[in-house]
Amino acid sequence: MLNRNEKHNLMMDFYEIALANGFISGGIQDTVAWFDMFFRPSQAIGGFCIMAGVQQLCETLSDLKFDDTDIEYLKQKGVSDEFLDYLRNFEFKCDIWAVPEGTPVFAGEPIVKVKGPVLQALLIETIILLTINHQTLIATKANRIVRAAQGRSVVEFGSRRAHGADAAVYGARSAYIGGCIATTNVQASKIFDIPVFGGMSHTWIQVFDSELEAFCTYAREYPDNCVLLVDTYDTINSGVPNAIEAFKRELLPRGYRPKGIRIDSGDLAYLSKKIRKMLNEAGFPDCDIYASNSLDEYIIREMLGHGARVDGFLVGERLITSADAPVFSGVYKIAAIEKNGEIKNCIKLSENVTKITTPCPKLLWRLFDMETGKAIADLLTLEDENISELTEYELFDPDYSWKRKTVTNFVARQLLVPIFDNGKCVYKSPDIADIRTYCAEQIDTLWEEVLRFEYPHNYYVDLSEKLWTEKQKLIKESRKIQ
Amino acid sequence: MLNRNEKHNLMMDFYEIALANGFISGGIQDTVAWFDMFFRPSQAIGGFCIMAGVQQLCETLSDLKFDDTDIEYLKQKGVSDEFLDYLRNFEFKCDIWAVPEGTPVFAGEPIVKVKGPVLQALLIETIILLTINHQTLIATKANRIVRAAQGRSVVEFGSRRAHGADAAVYGARSAYIGGCIATTNVQASKIFDIPVFGGMSHTWIQVFDSELEAFCTYAREYPDNCVLLVDTYDTINSGVPNAIEAFKRELLPRGYRPKGIRIDSGDLAYLSKKIRKMLNEAGFPDCDIYASNSLDEYIIREMLGHGARVDGFLVGERLITSADAPVFSGVYKIAAIEKNGEIKNCIKLSENVTKITTPCPKLLWRLFDMETGKAIADLLTLEDENISELTEYELFDPDYSWKRKTVTNFVARQLLVPIFDNGKCVYKSPDIADIRTYCAEQIDTLWEEVLRFEYPHNYYVDLSEKLWTEKQKLIKESRKIQ
Repeated sequence: MLNRNEKHNLMMDFYEIALANGFISGGIQDTVAWFDMFFRPSQAIGGFCIMAGVQQLCETLSDLKFDDTDIEYLKQKGVSDEFLDYLRNFEFKCDIWAVPEGTPVFAGEPIVKVKGPVLQALLIETIILLTINHQTLIATKANRIVRAAQGRSVVEFGSRRAHGADAAVYGARSAYIGGCIATTNVQASKIFDIPVFGGMSHTWIQVFDSELEAFCTYAREYPDNCVLLVDTYDTINSGVPNAIEAFKRELLPRGYRPKGIRIDSGDLAYLSKKIRKMLNEAGFPDCDIYASNSLDEYIIREMLGHGARVDGFLVGERLITSADAPVFSGVYKIAAIEKNGEIKNCIKLSENVTKITTPCPKLLWRLFDMETGKAIADLLTLEDENISELTEYELFDPDYSWKRKTVTNFVARQLLVPIFDNGKCVYKSPDIADIRTYCAEQIDTLWEEVLRFEYPHNYYVDLSEKLWTEKQKLIKESRKIQ
Repeated sequence: MLNRNEKHNLMMDFYEIALANGFISGGIQDTVAWFDMFFRPSQAIGGFCIMAGVQQLCETLSDLKFDDTDIEYLKQKGVSDEFLDYLRNFEFKCDIWAVPEGTPVFAGEPIVKVKGPVLQALLIETIILLTINHQTLIATKANRIVRAAQGRSVVEFGSRRAHGADAAVYGARSAYIGGCIATTNVQASKIFDIPVFGGMSHTWIQVFDSELEAFCTYAREYPDNCVLLVDTYDTINSGVPNAIEAFKRELLPRGYRPKGIRIDSGDLAYLSKKIRKMLNEAGFPDCDIYASNSLDEYIIREMLGHGARVDGFLVGERLITSADAPVFSGVYKIAAIEKNGEIKNCIKLSENVTKITTPCPKLLWRLFDMETGKAIADLLTLEDENISELTEYELFDPDYSWKRKTVTNFVARQLLVPIFDNGKCVYKSPDIADIRTYCAEQIDTLWEEVLRFEYPHNYYVDLSEKLWTEKQKLIKESRKIQ
């Protein structure tokens, strides 16, 4: 239900409960472990993603506790009394770092890093993945669509096709971060102070006896913000002439200019050119043309390539579901665990080389060229390496380690910032408008080749020599041990 | 955030607010109108869908009101004082009918029908679409996957890739309705009393010094429900031999049998056959094999076609996002409106013939053959037509009206049931387990040709002669009027 008061404390997969229960039995619940969230490369999503969801992650984890109904449920499922006691007196103790929202992030790098009691670090796996996977997916898709529009405005209006109320509200938030100028979702606008966009629907027109009467009534009601939907009956022969007539009859005498017309069906590129001409000839060259109808970055690019005269796009279902790539494959893997006071680094092997995890507690750096301001590469290091102190650094490809490149005149910035310290939230999320601006600025630090929709240039996410060596060592050992 | 106390009263698109505001200015807010929700055909989704989400729709609409913060927000957005007063004293007055959850439904037929003051009927558009679109999408996808598994169990475990918390919880609910046997989502299991499935993860194994130690500890902890994940290092050379060793060491001496092993990577069909042989030879022919890894109905069908020896499937991301068809294109259109005490039927034309709406307040019937029990066709009629009284009926194709067929020996059942009467909920939702059973029974009333995944036989959704005639009349009139 959309209007719920119930809290979702148990937003977990049951295996997390089963394992936590096992950790308690084995007495290892407080063993310190390090986990990373990262995502795998996806051709459909493109060369990079836009981080989003950190604010909601902070809110959810700040509030993590278990009430009597949760305990009762788990008791029925066979959870041990000891573990139930643990949950009843739950005190969150993890340290968490995350890449700030709006930052472009790349496959394979830790975008969330957790250090804490292994039981707790595991218990929050689904919450972290669910929150970041969803919002990052939508921010990324929105950003692609906004870039395709080449400076024209893009409004998110996908609520009705979103996967539930959260998907609508947090999707609208992510879309705004990604660069949309507004949403049509009223709740999202209210909660997050996102500009809201309204307009006309086919229903309005059908309620009246004629299209012209519907247009005139609307123009009288909203003279300063009059956008008319012209495709209910026949765009060129009825919709646009009636809109022009309504503008002349209702707006001009009152001293108003029309804001726009919207087309929602038909060949949008063709229609937009024809309509532009009709509006100009009628004395409304300042009347904008908005287009909608199952748009995405590819259709928008194609339309503009064909000379469409569109000033703004309303993008719904294909944005709010990321329709051609609706799965964001973020995963959460253990990187290290303490054993008898020593850190044991962990690796997961796979037949598929891109699925082999990178072990060790890590830092994530982005190197920017001081001259151009452009991002050169990202770098994963051990926690005791400080790249920002160096003036020269030799990068190398972790797969083809003979490919090497020495960089100078760079500045290295750590991307992971602390969001929880010993279970307490220490992060103050910026205003959403500032996140949006920051996102646009960060996109500007990427070379055009990295921004390409298809077959983007491979941006380097490298490992330091120390980290790479440790990884190779663990791969060899793991192959022997099992 | 997942743990929110805030209610989502304003789950609307702003144009609904703008239009409602206009209705108040025009004094037509209480004019009675009829709206239908229906969906458009989609090759990717298949020939029919499984209705879901009615219970959540009832809960949301039962609770529809606006608090001071909502009013304040809308005031800032320029909503008139008159409309704000209306919302402050909001009393829901609509009558609503819906097709019960679990029912197979077809494109073009009203699955939700609303009659009420035009302002209110419009204001709930996004709530209705959002709720039904999402849950119907997932129930439909789950049902396809369950049918592909041919009687083998299917567990939903997609939470981490769901589009937010609602998508995880209500997606799990919909998947269960569609025929999954369980979910891994603990919250969904708790709220809806869905069986929960747990198990092992790669993390458990990595926490221990060796795979064998991890397996043995797990087997001791969960001897009666021991499913081991065997692909962390090397499935055939390490995972399965270690699992067999753990079963022998920890289960047999205590009088337990293993429940299963799970494979999550590699060539699942090939591995399952090899593992089946290894388990049988080790004396565990009763140990089930579970498979996971980006499965959907097509991959499962292919695997089984290649003789895979899999007893159960865990299906995640492609189910919870309906990955190859993540957009459910339900729409909500006006069918009629009262004008001066008379009902004016409404139509929306389109260049695309399938986008022309069907006017009039309607009934929806399903005709079943008395001999076979199979569904013959669905039929839309005017409200004063009673098909259940007839013993003979002539169906005809609404597009090719010379295609006619007389049916006898049938029983006609109305599919739309009342859920709201004058704004009060009058529907008691069945238990979810009963909905699930009902769904399976209703699927059995469809011919195999209709159930096909690709190019299913076209199930007929016909119009009565009276309704068809009225539609043709309106098409002609509309073409003239504008």
